[in-house]
Amino acid sequence: RYGYFGRNTPEVACMTIIQVSGCLTDGRVYLSTAGEEMVTLNTKDTTAIRKLQAEGVEVVLLTSAEDPVSQALADRLAKRTGCQVVQVGNQPLDDLEPIVKQKKLEWKDVAYMGNEDVDTKCLNLAGLSAVPKDAPVEAINAAKYTCHSRGGLGAVREFADHILLQKQKAKSQMAQDRIDRHNF
Amino acid sequence: RYGYFGRNTPEVACMTIIQVSGCLTDGRVYLSTAGEEMVTLNTKDTTAIRKLQAEGVEVVLLTSAEDPVSQALADRLAKRTGCQVVQVGNQPLDDLEPIVKQKKLEWKDVAYMGNEDVDTKCLNLAGLSAVPKDAPVEAINAAKYTCHSRGGLGAVREFADHILLQKQKAKSQMAQDRIDRHNF
Amino acid sequence: RYGYFGRNTPEVACMTIIQVSGCLTDGRVYLSTAGEEMVTLNTKDTTAIRKLQAEGVEVVLLTSAEDPVSQALADRLAKRTGCQVVQVGNQPLDDLEPIVKQKKLEWKDVAYMGNEDVDTKCLNLAGLSAVPKDAPVEAINAAKYTCHSRGGLGAVREFADHILLQKQKAKSQMAQDRIDRHNF
Amino acid sequence: RYGYFGRNTPEVACMTIIQVSGCLTDGRVYLSTAGEEMVTLNTKDTTAIRKLQAEGVEVVLLTSAEDPVSQALADRLAKRTGCQVVQVGNQPLDDLEPIVKQKKLEWKDVAYMGNEDVDTKCLNLAGLSAVPKDAPVEAINAAKYTCHSRGGLGAVREFADHILLQKQKAKSQMAQDRIDRHNF
Repeated sequence: RYGYFGRNTPEVACMTIIQVSGCLTDGRVYLSTAGEEMVTLNTKDTTAIRKLQAEGVEVVLLTSAEDPVSQALADRLAKRTGCQVVQVGNQPLDDLEPIVKQKKLEWKDVAYMGNEDVDTKCLNLAGLSAVPKDAPVEAINAAKYTCHSRGGLGAVREFADHILLQKQKAKSQMAQDRIDRHNF
Repeated sequence: RYGYFGRNTPEVACMTIIQVSGCLTDGRVYLSTAGEEMVTLNTKDTTAIRKLQAEGVEVVLLTSAEDPVSQALADRLAKRTGCQVVQVGNQPLDDLEPIVKQKKLEWKDVAYMGNEDVDTKCLNLAGLSAVPKDAPVEAINAAKYTCHSRGGLGAVREFADHILLQKQKAKSQMAQDRIDRHNF
Repeated sequence: RYGYFGRNTPEVACMTIIQVSGCLTDGRVYLSTAGEEMVTLNTKDTTAIRKLQAEGVEVVLLTSAEDPVSQALADRLAKRTGCQVVQVGNQPLDDLEPIVKQKKLEWKDVAYMGNEDVDTKCLNLAGLSAVPKDAPVEAINAAKYTCHSRGGLGAVREFADHILLQKQKAKSQMAQDRIDRHNF
Repeated sequence: RYGYFGRNTPEVACMTIIQVSGCLTDGRVYLSTAGEEMVTLNTKDTTAIRKLQAEGVEVVLLTSAEDPVSQALADRLAKRTGCQVVQVGNQPLDDLEPIVKQKKLEWKDVAYMGNEDVDTKCLNLAGLSAVPKDAPVEAINAAKYTCHSRGGLGAVREFADHILLQKQKAKSQMAQDRIDRHNF
């Protein structure tokens, strides 16, 4: 995507947006007789989110209005991961557009991970985008990167490593450019 | 199943009947010391059920009298999915016959998903029928379609996509028929 | 194992003994902050246990003293499956010997499913014996049958189907013997 | 690692240190709406820990300050396994150094199992070290042994069997040495 005739810097994500159901979780919701609900997080993935934050990348988590992650769980997710949790409707793009603008970012500065038909627009727009291995084919086709891991089993970790690698490449590229400029 | 010498429309399901244990769930029941019970639903599958409903297909969930899904869980399933939940005995057909008749449907208008020996009669009768990948061989032999996904891990999603595709085919067939009738 | 020069009836199990941890469950114990414990049962397996009971085979479940299945869970297992739940020590054989004798059975009338080193003696003695696919090699070597399914994911179902098949073979063998005796 | 020109005894672990998240558990944390947290242990693994303890190997479990295993769960782990549970920071080595010294051990007497970047130093130093199959590549490269099992699904069992085998080898080596010394 970058190089001799292409862009001269790799994609650098300033913000990473991740769907909770099926990306951060494995899509399962546990229902109990007493009315309790549970979801599972993977330590691998939450560690990866902390790494992104430590490198100055803001991480936003998405839950859907139709999504079975209740408000109580959303609050707990926010607290545990230190991420903003945003509830989006059937068109995540409409809800995310103002957030991206407010932070004075463009979509090319955004990394997006989703796994449903409704995510295709965002997966197309984002500078970096990924789906878990077990995403439906529409989402896979829209994403720039398909993880080798399934949702809730390391997909977020894999995408985060990819984002950090791109960031590092961009840094060394900038350092190289500075050397070149000084020498010629 | 349809074509030149066969029926001239694909099967269209007006009602979809799905066994809960092993089709919508992965067959596991979580038992706790305090007497709690849990089952898991997959967001993929519940999203698929909503798609069916949006296309006017009624979805009915079956729990069995011997099935370890308690009444409290059945109520929660009904609320979360917006489906009618019916408790059936050892012969689901006997319990479903009046429901199908009451809605003035025939079995060819029904899509059925099950995964046990007791489901074979319904799997045979239904216009469309499917089993999850991990169903026993008796059920696989009776069903018209074997999913690539296991129960609770996308089997319902897969069947729903299949039903919606048939519905779409039937619509374009009808449109084609209208054109033919006008022209000749 | 039976035939021309061998025994003239297949093994028929009057009693089936199944280890809970790793055979009926997948070996996982869920621990919660509030002190709750959970294990999972599979509908496939509990349905299979009911089939055995319906055919007059008594089913006994084993928990171990070192086993993390607490008394409260054992009671719930007993109630849900209708089986006797016996807590055994490091040598299950010592605890089971009196039970087998009291029911006036011999070990050849017993079907045994286990998955640990401590089960090897019983796996050797029992007329029919099986281990789940994921059992350690010592147990696999001692068992007469290795399931294709893992513990908690259908291994008990598979073994039960095997037991019922043997029972059916024995019945048709007896019918055949009667015909032979009448004719010659 | 030992033999003709090498060391003349195999590595013998007096202490085994195991990361909880991703090694003893599968890395998943269950979050409920009511604020409950759950993790899963595998009977296979807890049985293996008891075997190590019976052979005089002390087992220490590590939770991380960033790790989502809360104090209440750590206490329950300690009680159930009979192990000391130590909370470590971003550099487990710094927290473990004093413990190893206090017990008058050297790192070559320690067996270590971890699955994260932060574990690499300890994996390098320990006489025996292992990672679960699903560990990231940095950890795999630092460890002396890569398990065939995943974290929470028998990896601890596999490592424990390996440690016990080494211990047995060392014993028979010592017996052999004694014979040799007496004869020559």
